[in-house]
Parts: sequence; C-alpha cells; structure tokens
Amino acid sequence: MQLDNRPVILVTNDDGITAPGIRALVEAVKDLGTVVVVAPDSPQSGMGHAITIGKPLRLDRVSVFEDLGIEAYQCSGTPVDCVKLARDKILKGKPDLCVSGVNHGSNASINVIYSGTMSAAMEAAIEGIPSAGFSLLDYKFDADFTVSKKVAHTVASRMLEKQMPPNMLLNVNIPITTLGEFKGLKICRQADAKWAENFDHRIDPRGRDYYWMTGQFVNMDSGNGTDIEALKEGYASIVPIKFDFTDTIMKSWLEKEWGD
Amino acid sequence: MQLDNRPVILVTNDDGITAPGIRALVEAVKDLGTVVVVAPDSPQSGMGHAITIGKPLRLDRVSVFEDLGIEAYQCSGTPVDCVKLARDKILKGKPDLCVSGVNHGSNASINVIYSGTMSAAMEAAIEGIPSAGFSLLDYKFDADFTVSKKVAHTVASRMLEKQMPPNMLLNVNIPITTLGEFKGLKICRQADAKWAENFDHRIDPRGRDYYWMTGQFVNMDSGNGTDIEALKEGYASIVPIKFDFTDTIMKSWLEKEWGD
Repeated sequence: MQLDNRPVILVTNDDGITAPGIRALVEAVKDLGTVVVVAPDSPQSGMGHAITIGKPLRLDRVSVFEDLGIEAYQCSGTPVDCVKLARDKILKGKPDLCVSGVNHGSNASINVIYSGTMSAAMEAAIEGIPSAGFSLLDYKFDADFTVSKKVAHTVASRMLEKQMPPNMLLNVNIPITTLGEFKGLKICRQADAKWAENFDHRIDPRGRDYYWMTGQFVNMDSGNGTDIEALKEGYASIVPIKFDFTDTIMKSWLEKEWGD
Repeated sequence: MQLDNRPVILVTNDDGITAPGIRALVEAVKDLGTVVVVAPDSPQSGMGHAITIGKPLRLDRVSVFEDLGIEAYQCSGTPVDCVKLARDKILKGKPDLCVSGVNHGSNASINVIYSGTMSAAMEAAIEGIPSAGFSLLDYKFDADFTVSKKVAHTVASRMLEKQMPPNMLLNVNIPITTLGEFKGLKICRQADAKWAENFDHRIDPRGRDYYWMTGQFVNMDSGNGTDIEALKEGYASIVPIKFDFTDTIMKSWLEKEWGD
C-alpha cells in the first residue's frame, strides 16, 4: 500500500467486516489519518485472545469501504489474527494507532477477557501500538452509533495528538444515550464482576443432549470509580488495560507462605 | 455424581481429553481428592479465553479415565466452556480446586494471554475456585511428565492444605529437566515479552494465497525475578495471576492528562 505523511490507523473488530459498528468506527476516524481496515470475514464474538495455529489463514482485499475511499481486507481468522496479519503482510510495520470496534454490546468490567474486540486492541498494544477498543452497550444490529462515533473521534484524536505512553491500551465503553444526554468521558477502573452461567439444556431431533450458554452479569463491586458505575451515570468509561497479569499482592503472600 | 467428604478437584486442559499431559495431571492429583475430568473433545491450543455463544455445546461422558476409576466428560467447546459446563451441569457447584494442563508447551510470560490452559484456570478463579494451570516446556507428544507430576502434586497439595486467598490463580511452568536436576519451585513475575510473527505465505492448488502463522518468542525483560529467568535456571516458575486488568499507572497518567 501507498502511505502519505498522515498517521496510519488500523481498524479492526470482532463482529466481522460487514457489521454496522466497524463502519461507524471507520467514519469516526477517517479524517484523522490514512485508514486501513483488516477485520474478520465472519462474526467472532467471544473469541477472547484466540489465535489460529492449527489451520492456514486467508486474507483477501474487499470493496466494503470503497465508497469511503478506504482500503479493506477480510481475514478468515480471529480478531488477534487480523492484527498480526495486518502488521506483517499489509502495513509491513507498525501503524500509529489501532482502533477496534465499535462492538455491538458491552465490553466493560470482566467482559474484557472474553472480548475479541479488546483482544485485537491488546495484541496491537503488545506490539507497542497505542490502541483502543470501543463498545456500545446496545447489542442490536441497528443500534444508534452517533454517540459512539463522537467518543471514538475524541479518543483517537487525543491518542494521535501527542506521543502516548508505550503499550497504551484503552477499554472504552459507550452508554445507550443521545448526544444531548451524553455526560462525557470518565477514566475508570475495571469493576469486579462475573457472569453467572446457566446452560439451557435441550434435546436434538436425534435424541442427543445439547446446551446453549446463557448467563447473567453479576456486579460484585460496590466501590466507586468503576466503569459500570460511570456507564450507569451516562458517561463513556475509559479503563486503561495492562497485559502484565502478575498479581503482586498474591505474589508477596506466596513468597511469605511458600518461600523456601 | 456422588461426592464423599474428600475435596473435589476439577481437571481440564486445552490439548484435549486424550492428550498425555492431562493424564499426567490426573495421575498427579488423584490421591488428593475426588477427581472429575471435563476437557475438550479436540485440541484447543491458542484458544485464549474464547467462549462458544453462537452454537450449542455437546457434553458426553467418556471412559478415558475408567482405568483410574475417574469420572470424565468431553465437551465440544473451548477450555473456558468446559469449566462453565462442569460447574453448572456436572458438579452443580464449586469444586475445591481446579487444575488445568499439563499443557504440551510453555505458557510462561505473554503466552498466558493466548493460552487455553490458563484461560480455563482463570475462568475457575473468577468463580472463586482456587486454580492453577500447569505447562511443560516440551511440545512433544511423548514428552516426559515426571517432573511435571511432582510439581503438580506439590502445588495442588499446598493449595488444598489450608484456605487459599479468594480468586487465587497460578501460572505454573515446568522446565525440561529430570528429577535429579530439578531445582524446585520459584515464585516469579511475568516477564515482559512478545511473539514476533512471520506469516508463511503459500499458494494452494487452486492458485489462492494462504498463510501459516509462525513466530519467535522475544524476551524484552532484562530484569530479575521473571518466570523466563527461573525456567532457564531449572526452576518451575509460579506466577500468581489477576484478572483485574486495570493499569493503575496509566490510569493516574490519564487522569492528569485527560481529566476535565
């Protein structure tokens, strides 16, 4: 590809290249630099940080964003595969920014670990590319991305404005609201929450059991400053994420208890 | 299932229920409690924290561990699905301990985020079940799990011995060594490292491009106390892992720079 002097922005997602959310994101950032889209060819929700190692990957140029004058590729792999392939085979180097989303549905709190949207952004951040994942708390296909576009534009602009710390990774979630009601951005911490699963047991036409995963989000965090709290108040939550998962408190405990 | 008064130990993995590594783990912990195995019906390496939401799951009792008198189930989903299904449909409650592995290949350092082995253990820890993932630095099918079994037995015993802190999660990696050469356990932090990918580009018999993911592990951490360092010295590394991913240093920076 030909690059001019403008910043290069890699756009990806986990709902697939034809999802309305990625189009909203492309529209939100297209004036900030040279945008290249590399996204899955099919929905990849819940893929977490999965990578494809047991089978080969396809990567094909597509015309999905030709109307906006933007180069786009679809990949047969996971969101993380898309970022890896984009860097190695399309951009042949680091873009200035990677944005992922806009996801149809929340990635706040513990959802960050199941999220393909956030894993794509995390993969870029591991590579030293400032990255952000954007998610709207509306699962619907025809969700209104107006506020999401405003948030994505603001966050991406700030990230490009001046040198960001290395490995910067932001988990940005957007409430269901209107431009008039929207309260603004809030820097938050990840709420302590989990999913309580109940599998829906059914029997197929051949008499064999099968299960659908269903579940309820349980917020166990009554403290202040969480992403869940900010979203309830009408703010877009921004949680900076790290990928050194060492639990330093548990480490000290173990050194005391298990140390030889 | 019928449970006696012994602790209940859930065993899972990501290499699939027939992998030699999970048999080694079952043998290592079977005397410590009532063991139940729920593992994927096929290899799931690199699945990260993926969950199955777009298709139904199968869960079938199998006789793989009948020779050891142990109840076992295979599941069509990911390692994380296995843990969720085990809790909801087989154990109908929390086991006392969840152990995952023994993985064929390292999950030290940044591998933790790609690892199905560690994601299964993390899913259990989110549920408040003390958990550990075990990985041997030998990818071979016929790897020698003698030291791994000793390590798994020691760690699982300690975790059952007295009440562990809630949400305890350990990433345990075992070097390729013999019982005689083995140095023991070392509590460590996650090394700062990444994978440098190079996709192997090929052309299929129909003339279409495809790519195989290949890569090299790059350790960027020259500090002391890392898992990579301990493994090189012949220790088994134990890194306690947390799943609140908030980057508190970046959070302070953002509050200063972006605060309104």
